[in-house]
Amino acid sequence: MAIITLTTDFGTADGYVGAMKGVIMRLAGSHPAPAIVDLAHDIPPGDIPHAAWVVATSTIEFPLGSIHVVVVDPGVGGARCGVVVRARGRWYVGPDNGVFAYLTERTSEAYAIENERFRAEHVSRTFHGRDVFARTAAAIASGEDPSTAGPLVGLVGRLPWGPRQRAAGRIVHIDRFGNLITDLPEAEAGAAVTIGGLTLPIVGTYEDVAPGELLAYIGSAGTVEIGVRDGRADRRIPAARGGDVFPAPAAPAEHQGPYR
Amino acid sequence: MAIITLTTDFGTADGYVGAMKGVIMRLAGSHPAPAIVDLAHDIPPGDIPHAAWVVATSTIEFPLGSIHVVVVDPGVGGARCGVVVRARGRWYVGPDNGVFAYLTERTSEAYAIENERFRAEHVSRTFHGRDVFARTAAAIASGEDPSTAGPLVGLVGRLPWGPRQRAAGRIVHIDRFGNLITDLPEAEAGAAVTIGGLTLPIVGTYEDVAPGELLAYIGSAGTVEIGVRDGRADRRIPAARGGDVFPAPAAPAEHQGPYR
Amino acid sequence: MAIITLTTDFGTADGYVGAMKGVIMRLAGSHPAPAIVDLAHDIPPGDIPHAAWVVATSTIEFPLGSIHVVVVDPGVGGARCGVVVRARGRWYVGPDNGVFAYLTERTSEAYAIENERFRAEHVSRTFHGRDVFARTAAAIASGEDPSTAGPLVGLVGRLPWGPRQRAAGRIVHIDRFGNLITDLPEAEAGAAVTIGGLTLPIVGTYEDVAPGELLAYIGSAGTVEIGVRDGRADRRIPAARGGDVFPAPAAPAEHQGPYR
Repeated sequence: MAIITLTTDFGTADGYVGAMKGVIMRLAGSHPAPAIVDLAHDIPPGDIPHAAWVVATSTIEFPLGSIHVVVVDPGVGGARCGVVVRARGRWYVGPDNGVFAYLTERTSEAYAIENERFRAEHVSRTFHGRDVFARTAAAIASGEDPSTAGPLVGLVGRLPWGPRQRAAGRIVHIDRFGNLITDLPEAEAGAAVTIGGLTLPIVGTYEDVAPGELLAYIGSAGTVEIGVRDGRADRRIPAARGGDVFPAPAAPAEHQGPYR
Repeated sequence: MAIITLTTDFGTADGYVGAMKGVIMRLAGSHPAPAIVDLAHDIPPGDIPHAAWVVATSTIEFPLGSIHVVVVDPGVGGARCGVVVRARGRWYVGPDNGVFAYLTERTSEAYAIENERFRAEHVSRTFHGRDVFARTAAAIASGEDPSTAGPLVGLVGRLPWGPRQRAAGRIVHIDRFGNLITDLPEAEAGAAVTIGGLTLPIVGTYEDVAPGELLAYIGSAGTVEIGVRDGRADRRIPAARGGDVFPAPAAPAEHQGPYR
Repeated sequence: MAIITLTTDFGTADGYVGAMKGVIMRLAGSHPAPAIVDLAHDIPPGDIPHAAWVVATSTIEFPLGSIHVVVVDPGVGGARCGVVVRARGRWYVGPDNGVFAYLTERTSEAYAIENERFRAEHVSRTFHGRDVFARTAAAIASGEDPSTAGPLVGLVGRLPWGPRQRAAGRIVHIDRFGNLITDLPEAEAGAAVTIGGLTLPIVGTYEDVAPGELLAYIGSAGTVEIGVRDGRADRRIPAARGGDVFPAPAAPAEHQGPYR
């Protein structure tokens, strides 16, 4: 059974996600029907870096060969190219605008979606999720060879921040709980980190600090995160997405008390 | 495999959608289990025209014979009738309060849900989604003949606006992105449209205007939409849902510059 | 086919729900794949009583033997225990922090999740939804005996309010529509109830009062609810969750007019 996940900024109040599901079920619904999995639909509208992080950190859990459609596509109908990407043993389908940036840092291959077996005959200018990307996913789930979707291309989509520098990281995502998630890996973090002018020791989990206190810890992606026990770090740290985080040898004495 | 989609205003924080899914899985879960598809659950509470547009424009993508449950039902337990409707080769289940208005402009047939094979023995006064509509969908998916649900009835649910007049349209939906979606079809739109006192030329897609500019274009439903590139048209156009849109021969010269 | 439902406070903008689904599909995805059902993901962050009510009132509709994962877990990584609970003929998986309180008022059995067949070899400190609970659900769906997950334990999680006193109830949930849902059962409610200083007669449904009026009625859980026709009761009644509701012999005369 093929698996197709959907990640969009379409929300759950309009019919756009439904239309995509309908296309997939109509075109790939028979013998055996693919499993259509909602991954996340409340990506902030047009927020490509948000989508890129969500897709990179969650799709890795899915079986090899699974198909992941990403439609955060403010440039729909314009110059950006629709692509199918092979990365990490899985297939990714969506616009080449940066949403696949974290996936393709290592070896990957990408094909422009041009072949009519992978898209509608008449493609609307504003809803490629329905007319291109859902159809590409359905085609792959039905056994089409993704490498026949179109010519091999180099991805040009980039995130606003460049590649990570060694011994430093960036805030790459702020989640629903207000946690600041960085790309600084555990192996480089050391005993403490400096972020937004504060130095925080790295502890194990929320209960290692008092309610309302800031903490740094190794998050579920294996990188440093900043949180507040029973609170929101994004309201306490004067740093935005893209901001720097540095390893620190240890928290200075004056910061080893409560972080309020 | 039967397909059952769910469209509600129940949101994703309460157990109402879950209870409906449980009923369907309990009653229709065996040999072969139906596919239950979330279509949209964040319809604004009680917003019948919103639901009507979402259902009409998305369910058309699903296979013939699919079953579409719509529970936006502020009059639950009152005088409105629960119905199963055959329209466009698909089955629709929900209250007769206008949610099916766009589907039934052409030929359709509707049956009141009265037979106990299509509803619970004891029906609560406030949750027909669980006690009537989920059960009707499960019954159809299990092979019951929908025309035996109850007597053939004429639908009485209407939207606040009447039938569209020729050579004019209405704003029928405002989506998550703030786009104003009208029911003026491409064939009648011409080169420009007048809406909220502004005349806008019809262009291809967002990238045909500068960031922050208003644009009119043919949307994914084949009708005129008004948007703002990287912005929200609903904050820029002094027009509400139900407001008029007219074809215009061409945008006047003073409006062919930036629309800010 | 096994059924696994997911109830979380992870929202639909991050990748946490997706990661859980990926784990389940990877570990339990073959011959026959379980049905993964989104129950509710917008539980307010960390709101254990909210989750407890949603889970108790919706999972009862699912077939016997179904598996229900609940991840509202502000104490993740701390002292609270991860458990699998047998209650009402179904399996429940999540933290022992009160989310199962309504389920376990009657006979139930609970096992701590310790065995490595029920969790990841390396468990992160902050995402037991992915590393423990999704894996436990996948293990049960794959045929593992839940009673081998770990030692039999007594649940210690409690809600902020104690057991209900006879002839009184509490507001236990406020839903998306602003309805105040109590745990006062129909059999004890009588002809009227007193709540927040007001006495309201119990009527049948919304249409039994005029638009904008308060009403008390028997809700879909079989308990008293307070609503406003075409409005929100939570903005009209000076009472919060946990507040008292009492049966009243009948509404006094001065309250039998409009409740505005």
